[in-house]
Amino acid sequence: MDSNLDEVQVEQPDSGVQTKTSKSKFRKKPAKFAGPKTAPGLKFSFLGGVGEIGKNMMAVEYGNDMIIIDAGLTFPSDDMPGIDLIIPDSNYLLQNKDKIKGMIITHGHEDHIGAVPYVLQNVNVPIYATRLTCALIENKLKEHKKIKAKLVSVKPKTVIKLGVFSIEFVKVTHSIGGAVGFAITTPAGVYFHTGDFKVDYTPIDGEGMDLARLSEISKKGVLLLTADSTNAERPGFSISEAKVGKTIDAIFSQNKQKRIIVATFASNIYRVQQLLNIAEKYGRKIAFSGRSMINVCETASKLGDLKFNRENVVDITRVDKYPDNEICILSTGTQGEARSALTRMAEGDFNKIEIGENDLIILSSSTIPGNEKAINNVINLLYKKGAEVIYESLAEVHTSGHAYQEELKTLHALLKPKFFMPVHGEYRHLKAHANLAEAMGMPKQNILLPDLGDQITITKNTMQKTGVVPCGSLLIDGVGVSEVGSSILRDRMQLSEEGVCVVVITISMLTGALTSKPDIISRGFIYKSDSEFDVMEEAKNVVINTISQTDFKSHDWSEIKTNIKKNLTGFFARQIKCRPMVIPIILETK
Amino acid sequence: MDSNLDEVQVEQPDSGVQTKTSKSKFRKKPAKFAGPKTAPGLKFSFLGGVGEIGKNMMAVEYGNDMIIIDAGLTFPSDDMPGIDLIIPDSNYLLQNKDKIKGMIITHGHEDHIGAVPYVLQNVNVPIYATRLTCALIENKLKEHKKIKAKLVSVKPKTVIKLGVFSIEFVKVTHSIGGAVGFAITTPAGVYFHTGDFKVDYTPIDGEGMDLARLSEISKKGVLLLTADSTNAERPGFSISEAKVGKTIDAIFSQNKQKRIIVATFASNIYRVQQLLNIAEKYGRKIAFSGRSMINVCETASKLGDLKFNRENVVDITRVDKYPDNEICILSTGTQGEARSALTRMAEGDFNKIEIGENDLIILSSSTIPGNEKAINNVINLLYKKGAEVIYESLAEVHTSGHAYQEELKTLHALLKPKFFMPVHGEYRHLKAHANLAEAMGMPKQNILLPDLGDQITITKNTMQKTGVVPCGSLLIDGVGVSEVGSSILRDRMQLSEEGVCVVVITISMLTGALTSKPDIISRGFIYKSDSEFDVMEEAKNVVINTISQTDFKSHDWSEIKTNIKKNLTGFFARQIKCRPMVIPIILETK
Repeated sequence: MDSNLDEVQVEQPDSGVQTKTSKSKFRKKPAKFAGPKTAPGLKFSFLGGVGEIGKNMMAVEYGNDMIIIDAGLTFPSDDMPGIDLIIPDSNYLLQNKDKIKGMIITHGHEDHIGAVPYVLQNVNVPIYATRLTCALIENKLKEHKKIKAKLVSVKPKTVIKLGVFSIEFVKVTHSIGGAVGFAITTPAGVYFHTGDFKVDYTPIDGEGMDLARLSEISKKGVLLLTADSTNAERPGFSISEAKVGKTIDAIFSQNKQKRIIVATFASNIYRVQQLLNIAEKYGRKIAFSGRSMINVCETASKLGDLKFNRENVVDITRVDKYPDNEICILSTGTQGEARSALTRMAEGDFNKIEIGENDLIILSSSTIPGNEKAINNVINLLYKKGAEVIYESLAEVHTSGHAYQEELKTLHALLKPKFFMPVHGEYRHLKAHANLAEAMGMPKQNILLPDLGDQITITKNTMQKTGVVPCGSLLIDGVGVSEVGSSILRDRMQLSEEGVCVVVITISMLTGALTSKPDIISRGFIYKSDSEFDVMEEAKNVVINTISQTDFKSHDWSEIKTNIKKNLTGFFARQIKCRPMVIPIILETK
Repeated sequence: MDSNLDEVQVEQPDSGVQTKTSKSKFRKKPAKFAGPKTAPGLKFSFLGGVGEIGKNMMAVEYGNDMIIIDAGLTFPSDDMPGIDLIIPDSNYLLQNKDKIKGMIITHGHEDHIGAVPYVLQNVNVPIYATRLTCALIENKLKEHKKIKAKLVSVKPKTVIKLGVFSIEFVKVTHSIGGAVGFAITTPAGVYFHTGDFKVDYTPIDGEGMDLARLSEISKKGVLLLTADSTNAERPGFSISEAKVGKTIDAIFSQNKQKRIIVATFASNIYRVQQLLNIAEKYGRKIAFSGRSMINVCETASKLGDLKFNRENVVDITRVDKYPDNEICILSTGTQGEARSALTRMAEGDFNKIEIGENDLIILSSSTIPGNEKAINNVINLLYKKGAEVIYESLAEVHTSGHAYQEELKTLHALLKPKFFMPVHGEYRHLKAHANLAEAMGMPKQNILLPDLGDQITITKNTMQKTGVVPCGSLLIDGVGVSEVGSSILRDRMQLSEEGVCVVVITISMLTGALTSKPDIISRGFIYKSDSEFDVMEEAKNVVINTISQTDFKSHDWSEIKTNIKKNLTGFFARQIKCRPMVIPIILETK
């Protein structure tokens, strides 16, 4: 491990309410910041992850002390062309830089750690997370070389102290190793945050969610719960990870002569562990394929979070030295990503592996909304090569990492919180989770659905919205860490749907008359010319008329440009129902 | 009804194989068309709908006679900005214009009728379909005023004769009224095409799929079956439409005090009929909302395909004259379409209806892939207004119109075809359907998975690929019926993801030297300038250097343009990791 990944000095678990409050330390807000009023109590500022899936981030503060929980990203939707990722606005954190005692991270998925490098640029505070989460953040920081971070690895069942907050790391089960929730003792009372979780009674690592600890914490009284709502609409229980292993084991046992390729999420080390065990059981060598699969397995194996016999691993380039029935390939590419190992295999563009009729491919994964078409394409191509393909809709080869309704009920029943705020979900998911809590007997007024940018203040007896904080989305393009403004995005949408039309005009500085015919260059938009009507010739006439009708005396080029834009846009809309972006360029000649 | 919608002269059902063949009439292909060789037998040309969902169209020919089955469209995916719809290439039909005896249509969904106006521009042949399908095609043709079509309405259980083909219309159940399959008697034998279908034993109109007739047809021997594969991956049976009605009835009975708004697909007249019945049962007036809902209900009601008490209908503008518990609104907008009635209600932008806490909204529909985000947005907005929302994942308020595996087995078991080609689905669906047929005992060599553009020839004892025909996608933009080429689409993608950069240079015609500093105008791409390095200033220097290094003697502007493009693209890629479209504009001065 890297030297900046040290074990923290830990205290014994203790969820007792701290009697010392730090109200006297309240600091006046700097005048330049028109932020929320400082009501006494425990304040929550929702910077992401509520009313949306992804970019989870919130700030919890009491008096002069603030902590950040998670700093995630989200991926762009179709109406954001060219955008690589989206991170939460961290201006509120910047404004409160001096109060922040640290950042605590629930687990290592992108929607919880992806914004860490960007947030650290504004507020470089120590980060506390479990061993595997720290390692994944460290990998991520390597891509942002300028950022030096203090990463502190914390074991579950231990407590760290950040200002007035005593934070106990409580193990939860999720579709990644090292996931925790936080039991945070504050001057106002005990606050529990689940992070992403499910209740899995047959966990792969033998240690499930620490339900016993939840019950102990509950005895001391829980003031507030914030909990994952992703699957709050789904009745029943999510499938246990162990059941997925059984299904895959059965598939291996029924396909002993085939070569088997399994694509899964690299960070789901429980899944990977099961696949490694199953491959070994059936006498197959393992080959890792895809950069993230190799990286994560290497990291998790070094930490001891993934256990396998290294002699059983072969390099992907040596797979063809073995008979089909002695090989199992673990690959990335579950989402049909363009350059991933599995996609290249399907396209016949992966020189290490050629897919054929004796191949069985298991997609041990779910479809992330928006990727349907890419995944379908990969499945179709694999079938066309004669391979057999098994995926979630055909067999139980995947399970969700988020609690279903009955699991959520277990959580609520164990913790018995006084106040509740559903988090991590769109409004519909938060609403379903709120309904569930109400159905379990929680008074309606004790439940609050937070919105992005809300600041909620909680005291021993009250929970209310007390203000709003700066929030929103920063759109990150390939260009380092710059922000893409909405005007650029609007331009891109117009360019993409309608194309562009550059109009070049040379005007005499003396007379204001055109010195030659306007030139029009178009890209990305179409027009139908027939013998009777040439759209582009006619468009040039529109430009000529516009100039002749504009009063030259003012020498106001911007007025000419505005008129050309207006008239040409109208002309194209009428004639060919297109609205290309019109860019007039005026050159002056003597 | 419009006068061009006449009842056809029909023959009695007769599936006997015609003994007279028309081989003597075989016509030589014109030399200019390098099409498939003319093997004797029944020829199928797949112009759409295989290896893809949507734009269903195929040509069936024997000797000098050809018929077209369906002419559908598909909607564009995210990588086709600005495209409105996609239709199949109909050049093969154009090349065989004189052979075509008519077009037969299975049902009135867009993926089966959407390309009719475009295909008719190339080959204006009579169209045969059931009454409701004819009416829906007629509505569609009204938007394309120049096209005059001969529409012939045909009742199920009747036979029409088109050249050598005797075509019996066989009623099937689907999520639209008037759906049929075709039992086509040809000189080579009987061919059965299902169209989109499901097997529903409790159909709403009391007449389900005509299974008895399938069994009779089967007795005479079916040479070939082509069948809908959309749900071939799904085990079991699809839910009956009647079950959906029961679920919705229960929701009405549990929400007697609320105002109820149901959004559904207007063309699903079985669903609409059930909703009308349920509303009446619970003493609620009906208000139709949304253009297509009003149009389709009007049309279907005139035809007698939809039955309701007109006194029970109120205009949407008069809804607020009634108490909430006496109103049921039937609305469009199940896919979160931007300007649909439901979306505008959710956004508070629909002056006729204001959504509040006493509203219950039922989305009696499924999510068409690609619309997830828009639908989620509508659901979230409705929840935020305090309404209750029920949708497919919460209750059985919708069912698929396509047969699941056990229904497909019923079809195969009844028809016992000799040869089988799965159609209507991506390759994975076709493959699943082929596997199902094989599992039922059909010899593997009697099953063929057609690909787009394949021409398959079938005789009494053989089925083989005998050629390829022109096929592909025509992308339709707003501009009438023009075609958008792939280069325009590439331009649009680049414009949308990277933006555009126009470089304007004025060069002396005499010396080839710049007469002023280059001008660079950019749109839709970003750059980060800091005090030390101004990207745009540096880009201008790149242009200046490029021109000074280009040999002017050749007076070759295109060379200068190419060099500027190359050098600037490289410069931006290195400096800011962007690849904007570079458009150089050179102006000559004296």
